[in-house]
Amino acid sequence: MAGEKSAPKIVGLTPDRRQSFYGRDIVSVKQFSRDDLTYIFGVADEMRSIVKRVGATDLLKGYVLANLFYEPSTRTSSSFIAAMQRLGGSVIPIHGVQYSSVSKGESLPDTIRTLECYADVIVLRHPEVGASEVAARYASKPVISAGDGVGEHPTQGLLDIYTIYTELGTIDGLHVAMVGDLKNGRTVHSLARLLCLYDTKMTFVSPEILRLPPALKEELIQAGRPIAETARVEDVIETVDVLYVTRVQKERFADLREYEAVKGYYEITPALMERAKERMALMHPLPRVGEIHYDVDDDPRAAYFRQVENGLYIRMALLAAVLGKV
Amino acid sequence: MAGEKSAPKIVGLTPDRRQSFYGRDIVSVKQFSRDDLTYIFGVADEMRSIVKRVGATDLLKGYVLANLFYEPSTRTSSSFIAAMQRLGGSVIPIHGVQYSSVSKGESLPDTIRTLECYADVIVLRHPEVGASEVAARYASKPVISAGDGVGEHPTQGLLDIYTIYTELGTIDGLHVAMVGDLKNGRTVHSLARLLCLYDTKMTFVSPEILRLPPALKEELIQAGRPIAETARVEDVIETVDVLYVTRVQKERFADLREYEAVKGYYEITPALMERAKERMALMHPLPRVGEIHYDVDDDPRAAYFRQVENGLYIRMALLAAVLGKV
Amino acid sequence: MAGEKSAPKIVGLTPDRRQSFYGRDIVSVKQFSRDDLTYIFGVADEMRSIVKRVGATDLLKGYVLANLFYEPSTRTSSSFIAAMQRLGGSVIPIHGVQYSSVSKGESLPDTIRTLECYADVIVLRHPEVGASEVAARYASKPVISAGDGVGEHPTQGLLDIYTIYTELGTIDGLHVAMVGDLKNGRTVHSLARLLCLYDTKMTFVSPEILRLPPALKEELIQAGRPIAETARVEDVIETVDVLYVTRVQKERFADLREYEAVKGYYEITPALMERAKERMALMHPLPRVGEIHYDVDDDPRAAYFRQVENGLYIRMALLAAVLGKV
Repeated sequence: MAGEKSAPKIVGLTPDRRQSFYGRDIVSVKQFSRDDLTYIFGVADEMRSIVKRVGATDLLKGYVLANLFYEPSTRTSSSFIAAMQRLGGSVIPIHGVQYSSVSKGESLPDTIRTLECYADVIVLRHPEVGASEVAARYASKPVISAGDGVGEHPTQGLLDIYTIYTELGTIDGLHVAMVGDLKNGRTVHSLARLLCLYDTKMTFVSPEILRLPPALKEELIQAGRPIAETARVEDVIETVDVLYVTRVQKERFADLREYEAVKGYYEITPALMERAKERMALMHPLPRVGEIHYDVDDDPRAAYFRQVENGLYIRMALLAAVLGKV
Repeated sequence: MAGEKSAPKIVGLTPDRRQSFYGRDIVSVKQFSRDDLTYIFGVADEMRSIVKRVGATDLLKGYVLANLFYEPSTRTSSSFIAAMQRLGGSVIPIHGVQYSSVSKGESLPDTIRTLECYADVIVLRHPEVGASEVAARYASKPVISAGDGVGEHPTQGLLDIYTIYTELGTIDGLHVAMVGDLKNGRTVHSLARLLCLYDTKMTFVSPEILRLPPALKEELIQAGRPIAETARVEDVIETVDVLYVTRVQKERFADLREYEAVKGYYEITPALMERAKERMALMHPLPRVGEIHYDVDDDPRAAYFRQVENGLYIRMALLAAVLGKV
Repeated sequence: MAGEKSAPKIVGLTPDRRQSFYGRDIVSVKQFSRDDLTYIFGVADEMRSIVKRVGATDLLKGYVLANLFYEPSTRTSSSFIAAMQRLGGSVIPIHGVQYSSVSKGESLPDTIRTLECYADVIVLRHPEVGASEVAARYASKPVISAGDGVGEHPTQGLLDIYTIYTELGTIDGLHVAMVGDLKNGRTVHSLARLLCLYDTKMTFVSPEILRLPPALKEELIQAGRPIAETARVEDVIETVDVLYVTRVQKERFADLREYEAVKGYYEITPALMERAKERMALMHPLPRVGEIHYDVDDDPRAAYFRQVENGLYIRMALLAAVLGKV
């Protein structure tokens, strides 16, 4: 809404870091430089400190977020709602929109241009790849993607790499293994791209049929990062600094016996964790349905609930940054 | 809720304009006098100024709105939510109520009397004509209709006439043409009734089968306003000050060829706009599904997104007024 | 969230009343002592006073409630939302979760542990008996049950007994009759258990097939309370201090004629109320579908809408208490 609060959209970087986020859309992990991440990590650290000390701030008092979810996602939508509220702002929750104007045939650009008449920033979750970029093109207010189809989920990528940073104090020099459905898992794709900004080694652990898409693999090789592939977690468990586990989705398999066969590979158990380094991070974007045994939850290396919490700080940081309040 | 905040319901006007809105229900455009509109326009102007300058105010801090939608309507519900939040108040969002107490067979009066135990003001969208008046009769807190069935949608009528006022600086002396489904379009009915309070000329543009209901036509004639009817936009495009376009809904036609035939009449294109006055307003209550070509959006006379924005200011004005805070 | 705001969970009582609620879960009426009720009534009285005088307070400013409803319940969810908002806090509304992570197979403990990364307190409505206790076991933040299946609905029990207290000024010495479906009605079960903490006489009025479960009956007898059973309201109408009416649900009857036969017994009419004491309270947890005639609504003894309002004060009291702010 309006006057001093709206800002011209800025494409690319400027010398002033703050300027580079003010008024900007967040639609892809590809838009971030290493400096951008350093900056966002710093703001997220501040947000953590505020929440731990006093719970909330008035930084975005009077600001309104339109939280537009065309697909349900309790975790992500709740995280953005809490982020906005802990910044003192308020939220228009728009969930289950399939039942509304949209079902009357309205185009996404019209919906977005309508919502920006009410709100100062729009968070969009949409089932179609590229929807966030379309929305961003038409909006004069900042648009933050909360995931579009099998495409991007940039805030998840940011919270994942921020979690690595907070768990291990650095990202350079780490060996990160990603496990599970690497073909369809957009969180893996986003994280892999962000890791390319650092001096990391990546190993991709999956059954043959769920390997990383060749195009993405090529992209990582072009970026100059050493990568490896294997089908067995046992091959990496002793050397990894980060084990990033994802769901292997039953519905991807035509032959259920095949699913049952590979599923077992990727159940992280206390026994397996005994072979891992003393200082490492076990991560998962959640929800999990058996990939990590509940008995691992008390292991100090189990970082997945801290990962959830970091999502709050990252989203607070992004909201404050695109609205020019940090 | 309570004490100084609850007010006796006032029917009709009193010399003090503020008094006339405090505690009042908003259920029909028929309840407004020309003075009422002048007053509400003034408050809406103030709301615009607040939002443009600082985004929000604390005028309704501590007040709670129950936003009760028996039918989905992203646009209208989001507008009320944002309006309440930008006034510093908070909102109980009750959408999809068909799944709840209501489906247990509770009567509307009981639902309303329950919600007013929690909230200070109730906004109601309901599929049945007259539901808002029933709600208003049972509630001791103010009820604002957000549309009931094919009946009234008074806040849409108010934002429409307010848009004419802000776009053209006056309402008296204007020629307003309404286009599309004039038989079923409640926004057209509400706006036509409000225009009767001013010295306006109205032309109704529709296919034969979607003409204005005879009773409403008679009502307008009784009010002494010159009206005309035609099937062709071309007949009015050169003389109108306001072109108010609505959707022609496919499902109203038994014969789809008939629909396809009339649909074309009412697509507003850049070529058509070239024939219109330099100073006029092209309006649409949205959502649109083809009635206005996207290439018209950049035309300075295309007022439909400013119309959406005006909805925010009108609803802020009404909420503040019925709660006695302006 | 964090630091000074999170508190160790306290099981059982401590000499300091405030301490006994700070950080505590609210999952069963069985957890309360008479002293607890006295304390909560006092806080609820304060909340009423705040709401009546000024509408709201900033006591929970910066706090976030996750309102997690696996089943729809407009009344209860709206009551918690309004309670949190009138305390100055904000709410993450999570309704219709069946469509989300949960449907991806996530366990309740994981959902709860995720939400407590965002929120300071969790309200849970769940279709399965015992779900709230499971949630409370895994959460480090306080969990408040908003009803689980045919099991407990402790905040309803509290608002019911608080209503008796506010309507009649005392609970000791009263004769309370409960009417309707006593077999399945969890509100009746919760209220009966709470009444055992006082010197009350209870009469249970129901058709043969909807009698109080034998185990609960035994529990009340063990608690030393005089109880009686009858099928006719007429047997108690002249002597009761509280008549607590509940819905007889059609779908419980195999033979609809049987339903029609008993239904009539339990319609409270103005004629029936003429035979009741001048000072008594007619209560109903709502929604009603014919058990209390609308013509009774204006009877000063009709307490059911005040009962709804008391739900707001009780829930404000509980939220403030478990967060250690009273």
